[in-house]
Amino acid sequence: MAFNHKSAIGNRKSEMDLVLLSHGGGGRRTQQLIRDLILEHLGNPILDRLDDGACLDVPERDLVFTTDSYVVSPIFFPGGDIGKLAVCGTINDLAMQGAAPRYLSLALILEEGMALTDLERVIQSVARMVRETGVMVVTGDTKVVERGKGNGVFINTAGIGIRYPGVDTHVANARSGDAVILTGTMGDHGVAVMSRREGLNLETDVVSDVAPLWGMIEPLLREIPGIHSLRDPTRGGVAAALGDMATAAKVGIRIHERALPIRPGVQGACKLLGLDVLNVANEGKALVICAQAQADRALRILRAHPLGRKAAVIGTVTAETAGMVLLETAFGGERIVEVPLGEDLPRIC
Amino acid sequence: MAFNHKSAIGNRKSEMDLVLLSHGGGGRRTQQLIRDLILEHLGNPILDRLDDGACLDVPERDLVFTTDSYVVSPIFFPGGDIGKLAVCGTINDLAMQGAAPRYLSLALILEEGMALTDLERVIQSVARMVRETGVMVVTGDTKVVERGKGNGVFINTAGIGIRYPGVDTHVANARSGDAVILTGTMGDHGVAVMSRREGLNLETDVVSDVAPLWGMIEPLLREIPGIHSLRDPTRGGVAAALGDMATAAKVGIRIHERALPIRPGVQGACKLLGLDVLNVANEGKALVICAQAQADRALRILRAHPLGRKAAVIGTVTAETAGMVLLETAFGGERIVEVPLGEDLPRIC
Repeated sequence: MAFNHKSAIGNRKSEMDLVLLSHGGGGRRTQQLIRDLILEHLGNPILDRLDDGACLDVPERDLVFTTDSYVVSPIFFPGGDIGKLAVCGTINDLAMQGAAPRYLSLALILEEGMALTDLERVIQSVARMVRETGVMVVTGDTKVVERGKGNGVFINTAGIGIRYPGVDTHVANARSGDAVILTGTMGDHGVAVMSRREGLNLETDVVSDVAPLWGMIEPLLREIPGIHSLRDPTRGGVAAALGDMATAAKVGIRIHERALPIRPGVQGACKLLGLDVLNVANEGKALVICAQAQADRALRILRAHPLGRKAAVIGTVTAETAGMVLLETAFGGERIVEVPLGEDLPRIC
Repeated sequence: MAFNHKSAIGNRKSEMDLVLLSHGGGGRRTQQLIRDLILEHLGNPILDRLDDGACLDVPERDLVFTTDSYVVSPIFFPGGDIGKLAVCGTINDLAMQGAAPRYLSLALILEEGMALTDLERVIQSVARMVRETGVMVVTGDTKVVERGKGNGVFINTAGIGIRYPGVDTHVANARSGDAVILTGTMGDHGVAVMSRREGLNLETDVVSDVAPLWGMIEPLLREIPGIHSLRDPTRGGVAAALGDMATAAKVGIRIHERALPIRPGVQGACKLLGLDVLNVANEGKALVICAQAQADRALRILRAHPLGRKAAVIGTVTAETAGMVLLETAFGGERIVEVPLGEDLPRIC
């Protein structure tokens, strides 16, 4: 690798080990970065052409198109990093629309002075997820901003997926009487990232749940026709995702505190930080809304996948209290689950 | 508009006029921003669904997929702004692949403290270009980073286009003997942006050429089958684009200084700044490589479009000096056109 230079000046990094403004200038140094780092790890016949756009031969008609930027801080956290997050996040957005993830774009905004070895770790992580999931990175872009105008690396991935025939998992499809399933424990990603925030010194062994969900979702869609709604409870957590679903479908959602899968470490950390775990981000979980009669079968299918072993029915959809999410507490009480204003957990993804 | 609050404290902006971290938190404030700003200006039946991915019904098979992030500084410049640039840049990348631009994603990375009125100007500019070109913004994302970790707004747009039947304008298709056409004057965008850089105080009336090129390129592809190669000389300028083409096609490219269309204001500014105009970015120009026999017809078609009135044959493709671009100077000399390392013009797009 061209970036494994050893510095001649002891521990001080040499200029060649850092991202330079010229890496984003579109000249030879940009070409070198793309060749030595991006193509080295992510090369494939489409990307290797280095055209400004990727030409795709898509056999089916129904496509899903999605995008997300990732600004997570810190970029390395227990269980993952911004590269893994960027691939998984976009795969999961496609999966939630019932689409097999196929093609990704990868756009980097680098901060001048970032260590190239860190960048390489991130790209290697992208490459690992790409290999594991079979998606292809087919087009990309690299920009560099001055020191103090960025934060190491921001990543944008857009994705194209092929929609599973006959599937419509739109956020507004929940119907009164439906079951609400969560495919695993809540809040792992948010707590793992927070635990590495400067000044927080949160001691915990919680690792992020960041994972690509298509492998778990695909059998569900194949075996149970007519799943009503899918959503991954990322930023804003289960509360925000259920709130979106309740609002869009004009239904109420009632969840049961006792049924919510939570790791003790996450519970403890949330208590310490004063966070409601319902608001904490997940990056490897899905909310599944389906007809009550299909719930048991859905649970069996989900639990058969390593990422869904702790799947549980956490609630039901109701005709009353449209647009609201209600929590039945462990003590038999009831409270409204509020969608937070948004201040609690900045830069969690 | 929800963002036209008048501040109660004279000229000081109230908190409600600025981007807050909570605008990126995925809670109610994020929802409000999306509803009041994004959907207000960019709403359409696909985007309005607010799913995490857009479901598209694409009738043809051959798609082109592209992405670019925009980090231009300053975000407002003579002739355009980062919003117009983001739409045009992605449309042009699709056009250079011979694809009719159809769907865009729009991902914003906002810096805490950005004036919402500035953000609204940017979004209005996106909306104007979308209306003008008929593309649809179908999916998007909004993140916010802390003050001093970004720079107002960075934008990523990814795009999907439908490839024109039978067209292959790959960067490697230039053949010895081909004509090299540039569709207008060089360097306007780079000089316009530089002229507004702090500390530079460059007095010039040059405005950016940022423009969507599909309207000019489509008739060319329709009327002249077999155009060999298209490239927009953005970052790195005409030198970098021709260098890419020469390298990829393993040919030489010889251009003639006298034939290069340059505005006097651009020429003067480049002299003052010590820049080679061949390295300065364009955002509304294309390099067209076609068989010599088709060059006159191509010129007529290009010149019939308002964006191509100054189109000119600037050179030829040669079998010798493969991978190199040579300039015949106005005085009959000859020099190698170097692809710069990349330091000259950071954050030009």
